[in-house]
Amino acid sequence: MSETMYLIKNVKLYTGESVYPDGAILTDGPFILYAGDAAKLTAPPLKGRKIDIIDGRGGICMPGLCSAHSHVAMTLLRGVGGGLPLGEWLQRIFTVEALLTDDDIYTGATLAIMEYLRYGVTCFADMYFRANGVLRAAHEAKIRANACVGAISASHVAENEALFHEFDGEGELIRIYFGIHSEYATDKSVAHLAAETAQKLGAGMHVHVSETSSEVEACREQHGGKSPVEYLSDLGIFDVPTIAAHCVHVDEGDMAILASHGVTVAHCPASNMKLSSGAAPVAAMRAHGVNVAIGTDGPASNNTLDMFREMRLAALLSSLSTRNPASLSASDAIEMATVVGAKGAGFSEVGILRSGYAADLIVINGAAPFMATERDVAEDIVYAAAGGDVQMTMVGGQILYINGNYTTIDTERAIYEARAAMSRLL
Amino acid sequence: MSETMYLIKNVKLYTGESVYPDGAILTDGPFILYAGDAAKLTAPPLKGRKIDIIDGRGGICMPGLCSAHSHVAMTLLRGVGGGLPLGEWLQRIFTVEALLTDDDIYTGATLAIMEYLRYGVTCFADMYFRANGVLRAAHEAKIRANACVGAISASHVAENEALFHEFDGEGELIRIYFGIHSEYATDKSVAHLAAETAQKLGAGMHVHVSETSSEVEACREQHGGKSPVEYLSDLGIFDVPTIAAHCVHVDEGDMAILASHGVTVAHCPASNMKLSSGAAPVAAMRAHGVNVAIGTDGPASNNTLDMFREMRLAALLSSLSTRNPASLSASDAIEMATVVGAKGAGFSEVGILRSGYAADLIVINGAAPFMATERDVAEDIVYAAAGGDVQMTMVGGQILYINGNYTTIDTERAIYEARAAMSRLL
Repeated sequence: MSETMYLIKNVKLYTGESVYPDGAILTDGPFILYAGDAAKLTAPPLKGRKIDIIDGRGGICMPGLCSAHSHVAMTLLRGVGGGLPLGEWLQRIFTVEALLTDDDIYTGATLAIMEYLRYGVTCFADMYFRANGVLRAAHEAKIRANACVGAISASHVAENEALFHEFDGEGELIRIYFGIHSEYATDKSVAHLAAETAQKLGAGMHVHVSETSSEVEACREQHGGKSPVEYLSDLGIFDVPTIAAHCVHVDEGDMAILASHGVTVAHCPASNMKLSSGAAPVAAMRAHGVNVAIGTDGPASNNTLDMFREMRLAALLSSLSTRNPASLSASDAIEMATVVGAKGAGFSEVGILRSGYAADLIVINGAAPFMATERDVAEDIVYAAAGGDVQMTMVGGQILYINGNYTTIDTERAIYEARAAMSRLL
Repeated sequence: MSETMYLIKNVKLYTGESVYPDGAILTDGPFILYAGDAAKLTAPPLKGRKIDIIDGRGGICMPGLCSAHSHVAMTLLRGVGGGLPLGEWLQRIFTVEALLTDDDIYTGATLAIMEYLRYGVTCFADMYFRANGVLRAAHEAKIRANACVGAISASHVAENEALFHEFDGEGELIRIYFGIHSEYATDKSVAHLAAETAQKLGAGMHVHVSETSSEVEACREQHGGKSPVEYLSDLGIFDVPTIAAHCVHVDEGDMAILASHGVTVAHCPASNMKLSSGAAPVAAMRAHGVNVAIGTDGPASNNTLDMFREMRLAALLSSLSTRNPASLSASDAIEMATVVGAKGAGFSEVGILRSGYAADLIVINGAAPFMATERDVAEDIVYAAAGGDVQMTMVGGQILYINGNYTTIDTERAIYEARAAMSRLL
């Protein structure tokens, strides 16, 4: 993590708690020392260090975004099987995935992290059938990450446990959760084993839940009328902090279970729309007290890792599906895409710009078209901005992306190796 | 228009008819001389002129996008009334609009044109209650534009006719249509007058149609069971080329009428979702033979003018609402957002990159994140690209935007005047 002190000034500051038209942020190593009105900032004790000044040139400074559900290595599979329904699409994807090496996964994940940083994403929670390459890529890039193996067999759980011992807490930026793919793909005994191991090690869980209506129907048939939420809850999966991806087809009973167990739902609107899965009842879940975060899902079913486009879609889809344009406000969507996601991924004191919290933050370009007449910061962030408007991305007090340049990633190597992998795979 | 010849090379070329992995385009003044495989391009007769070479650096060259329904001056009202339902939102907007001067409208339109050009939009069809400022802005910026006055009273029609005589055909880039606001806001006699005048002058029409279900119900009550489409058709509105914006709530009978009259529907998914209006039956309309284009609508209800985000939303919304991910392919969405919109706005030989057609084209940055593993050009354009990825926008053979620079707009003046207007208005 960074030992530098940065002063970010000349920005509109959206902290997640307040808006400061003329704001400033001072960081000290990995943490925020001050976030607020520029006029009220006083000189800190320097202890012989200097302060690097970043002029935000009238842009917006806000918390970095957190994608609460992804499969980052799938940048190598972006666009594969486009236009197919979920079942056929999965078959086509599985065929290619069977050929992926650990190095391919590392390469695909590196490419995804480049895209995340380019688009202002400072944190992501990933699930993949092998996660070593994902974790190597995240650790090298110094992005905040949570990863797990989406277990189908017991050997996956063992691999997940090995990764826990190798990576969890690494530089304070990495968390390892235990993954099970889903109610329908993961055997009961494997799910049990994963949950037990997570509980023993104090880790969380990550699982796909109720993505399609047919998944819910089949579960009710096979498990004595239980929904996937009920089935997983009865198995004890939700007894540890859990990310439940999708939750498109959940009823009031499911919502009560998700709320009472403090489960974090990762809402993935682009993927749910693209694969015709449906519209998750986000406003209803929030009304039930469920923590709802937002995820990009994998780049194969999205096909971008732009969390700004995902926030916008979450807000638009809620207005459409509830027939109520006030069902999810712009600031609600930002909260979901920042602090709720970070908390769900096991990171506390991340996702809000406040003294003592992590210096995970981004600057939106003051030259972006909507900034000419910027009026309502939250509305502009959600509905007008896109990831391409981000000009600086900082994680743990270190600048990882600024104005087209990456400080921790050899981008030419990543692109070269990704193209070599793709010509071998596809 | 341009007298320059440009050679655009080192691009993947998506013409709207074919894809060339190593493509090239040669323009001569306002037209395309060659669009195809770079290897097959032969040296043209130069007649003493030189060719300016544009290196696309591995980007994508494609037709410029056309927004088939907009209210461009409303950049000044972006974010006003956010979160309100359509009725209340309109009231709030009307209050501010009553204060707009012609110069404000010119300023707001200039700002919108900057945004359109930044995002690769080369053509738009606009409706506003006063259109002089819109037309001055479009004419100066040299973007392709269709404009009308959204008539509520007879004086609007007279103003529209005056604009027709002043601007129609101006530099071949401007078309004037006759506008009526809608079935519900425009008196029958005014609608008649507008349609008659359009027919007399050989112009087209532009009207809001069936945006909300309550609008359709009220129309059926007041007009002997007729839907807005039936009512407007019976009035003769559709006897000239017509842009019908929205058409969210149309039935099979409506679709048959729209198809048989060759009406161009401007589908505005972001606006329809944001205002909780609904999901237009795009795939069904297309199956009935209706020309369906895509529009951004005004920046007050969107809140961006990014037609890439609009294409993506059209495709995602169709997959969601039909429960069929194959209901609208990526190339369908591009066709809607280019040639179908341009044709609907009265521009033939625009929107496809072909010899003899207008040199209205854009280049997407080869350094955009998804380009690292670009595989399916149409899928990447629709689902992965955003307007911010555009690096060059050309209209009628003239470069209007390139790498952050505008060639026909005094951007500092536009932003200065917009901010002055906003501090007066809001």
